[in-house]
Amino acid sequence: MVIQTLKGFRDFLPKEAKKRQYVLDTLKKVFESYGFEPLETPSLEYEEILLGKYGSEGDKLMYRFEDNGKRKVALRYDQTVPLARVVAQYQNELPMPFKRYQIQNVWRAENTQKGRYREFLQCDIDTVGSNSISTDAEIIACILDATRKLNFKGYSMRINDRQIFKNYNLSPKAIVELDKTDKEGPIVFLKQLMLEGKSNQEGDAIFDAIVKSKQTKNIQDLFSVLRSMGYKEGRNKDFWFDQTLARGLDYYTGLIFELRMESYGALSIGGGGRYDNLIGMFAGKQIPAVGFAFGFDRLVEAMGELNLFPKDLQTTKVLVTIFSPELLSKSAEITALLRAKGINTEIYLEEDAKMDKQLKYADKKQIPYVVIIGPDEVSKNMVTLKNMQTRGQKTIPQNEIEKLLAS
Amino acid sequence: MVIQTLKGFRDFLPKEAKKRQYVLDTLKKVFESYGFEPLETPSLEYEEILLGKYGSEGDKLMYRFEDNGKRKVALRYDQTVPLARVVAQYQNELPMPFKRYQIQNVWRAENTQKGRYREFLQCDIDTVGSNSISTDAEIIACILDATRKLNFKGYSMRINDRQIFKNYNLSPKAIVELDKTDKEGPIVFLKQLMLEGKSNQEGDAIFDAIVKSKQTKNIQDLFSVLRSMGYKEGRNKDFWFDQTLARGLDYYTGLIFELRMESYGALSIGGGGRYDNLIGMFAGKQIPAVGFAFGFDRLVEAMGELNLFPKDLQTTKVLVTIFSPELLSKSAEITALLRAKGINTEIYLEEDAKMDKQLKYADKKQIPYVVIIGPDEVSKNMVTLKNMQTRGQKTIPQNEIEKLLAS
Repeated sequence: MVIQTLKGFRDFLPKEAKKRQYVLDTLKKVFESYGFEPLETPSLEYEEILLGKYGSEGDKLMYRFEDNGKRKVALRYDQTVPLARVVAQYQNELPMPFKRYQIQNVWRAENTQKGRYREFLQCDIDTVGSNSISTDAEIIACILDATRKLNFKGYSMRINDRQIFKNYNLSPKAIVELDKTDKEGPIVFLKQLMLEGKSNQEGDAIFDAIVKSKQTKNIQDLFSVLRSMGYKEGRNKDFWFDQTLARGLDYYTGLIFELRMESYGALSIGGGGRYDNLIGMFAGKQIPAVGFAFGFDRLVEAMGELNLFPKDLQTTKVLVTIFSPELLSKSAEITALLRAKGINTEIYLEEDAKMDKQLKYADKKQIPYVVIIGPDEVSKNMVTLKNMQTRGQKTIPQNEIEKLLAS
Repeated sequence: MVIQTLKGFRDFLPKEAKKRQYVLDTLKKVFESYGFEPLETPSLEYEEILLGKYGSEGDKLMYRFEDNGKRKVALRYDQTVPLARVVAQYQNELPMPFKRYQIQNVWRAENTQKGRYREFLQCDIDTVGSNSISTDAEIIACILDATRKLNFKGYSMRINDRQIFKNYNLSPKAIVELDKTDKEGPIVFLKQLMLEGKSNQEGDAIFDAIVKSKQTKNIQDLFSVLRSMGYKEGRNKDFWFDQTLARGLDYYTGLIFELRMESYGALSIGGGGRYDNLIGMFAGKQIPAVGFAFGFDRLVEAMGELNLFPKDLQTTKVLVTIFSPELLSKSAEITALLRAKGINTEIYLEEDAKMDKQLKYADKKQIPYVVIIGPDEVSKNMVTLKNMQTRGQKTIPQNEIEKLLAS
């Protein structure tokens, strides 16, 4: 038997898991400060609920199987279709507008490549049931605040209105290619228009017109709300109007947006927009909605590379060592005392381990402080506190240690 | 198409999801105060990693299928086998002892019944790599502290040593039946012994001897450590020696324990013990381990029935209403101000909704306070704060509102 995980699936050992937890805790806090509430849906759903909603590509990439009861089931593929089901199923219970965040795994049988996984966390906020422009503005404001709270700098929200593409009758394929012009230039987009029967000149004219298109009423209204909230407009500021932003997904019906790290390879770390025709599909009526999804893995990766994680993400702040079995109870006493003060404290678990082994454990677990209590210390009611980074240590009165560690 | 979830699978709407999150946050905080660190493993694993470890019953209840690449895969069935795989796979990276908590869903194709689901959250702490009695004591202490932090009262940890059953050569089946004697009396246990060829008298004598069996050395040592930590011994205190506790799972090799709500129908809300032969199965050597798992659904259910959830679990503390479209910017200003003070604040999303509709939204979302800013308030730099529970309201200076809401 080969001991391994499946391709595209990952273990998160403590060091990595803690980073992810920090990001999630930060995001949740901001989402909740805007009144978004948590929603959880099952990992498995009836296949027919999920099938066909994402196009044939989606059906192909979905994890589907028959359960023991011969039901055709599928693993969650995104969080939007489950949201649509929830809205239909609990219409009378839910407050409207319904503002929810959802942070759960989804599964896709993708070809794995750098940054593509078969199991990954989605992190969405959506507001269902309102088409007021304040709703779009709130989603954008909440995401900008969350990004700031994660200590990112040099990000900007690209914003566009898909209405513009309708004005030029762009096909879904042409929209996908338009989205790439920002990084790859207009060639692929123009080729697509030629395939669709446009001449060279016609294509150039269309691209030119799109790039020069003016803000729509939706954009104007949105920008006015965002400005009144204190956000600044501009390519290197909080948000800007980018006519080449297209967002591939064809379920968007109006405003679309994408959060880009302009200062970090123009990496997109999330996107969203208004989709007024999807949520109502199970309820049998049109229900407007707007939302945003973070690319969670990219977010965590970018934070790592930009050194944005706090230095003190270690779980344990101090390891209380055991000098000798007879002094165990003294170490246990100090451990309980520190823990009661809200300091995450470990006591070494073997009572007869060499001090060197205990210090190595602290190093491996990146515990920043170690307490040593030998006979000398006990006799004077002192403890020795060792800083594992500087390797310096000092002997101090017992009652001073908590103050030192709390700071 | 019928809009429904699969049997045994659940949606958690915000009200329920928030309760669960509160419990998880509390547990994680206590786990981390003892130096347990988070671990996450994939939902899907190679079938052969999981199969056969839980007996034929486990293989039957496992969700198994072939993925698109014809790999035989299975959904996570518990968190112990994945832990064993992780320990084997990252032996050199992990600190030893390895103290981890893991809180993820598992899937079992069980017959659904009250309190039994096909997807449910497991909540485990385990320490791998130490057989010192301090390790068992720490797991128990951590769980007792976590239970206290959740505001439970009247709980006690039943503790036994499976060594006792070896002394009487009890079969696995007899051990399962012994576990029930506490609630159902000794009949089923005695019947099982008879099936195994024991006479009436022999059975009675065995049961009698078990019930009267003395604390083993392991129990004595453990209890001495627990007492030195300040925990009290006794059936209605923190922990006690219960000779009829057996814990069905046959992978336990020594001390076993179960947390029971003596004051709440003697409900078991979790259990654990020492299992020194399981973790090493992939690593090819014996690796001692001890752990505990909360029955998360039972925990949440019991907390609900015992009214242990904090009253202020609502996400949004205050809804700022919009008196009229012209006054929107004033409401937006107060919203931003309160949110900047760390108060979760929503602004109503439609600028021309009747006040009554806005108040109904607050009620449906259980938002405790509502702010109203009409022309009178604006002219005097005041705001009206309405308490949605008492329905009372008062008009106060703008700068007093944050103090009132923060308290």
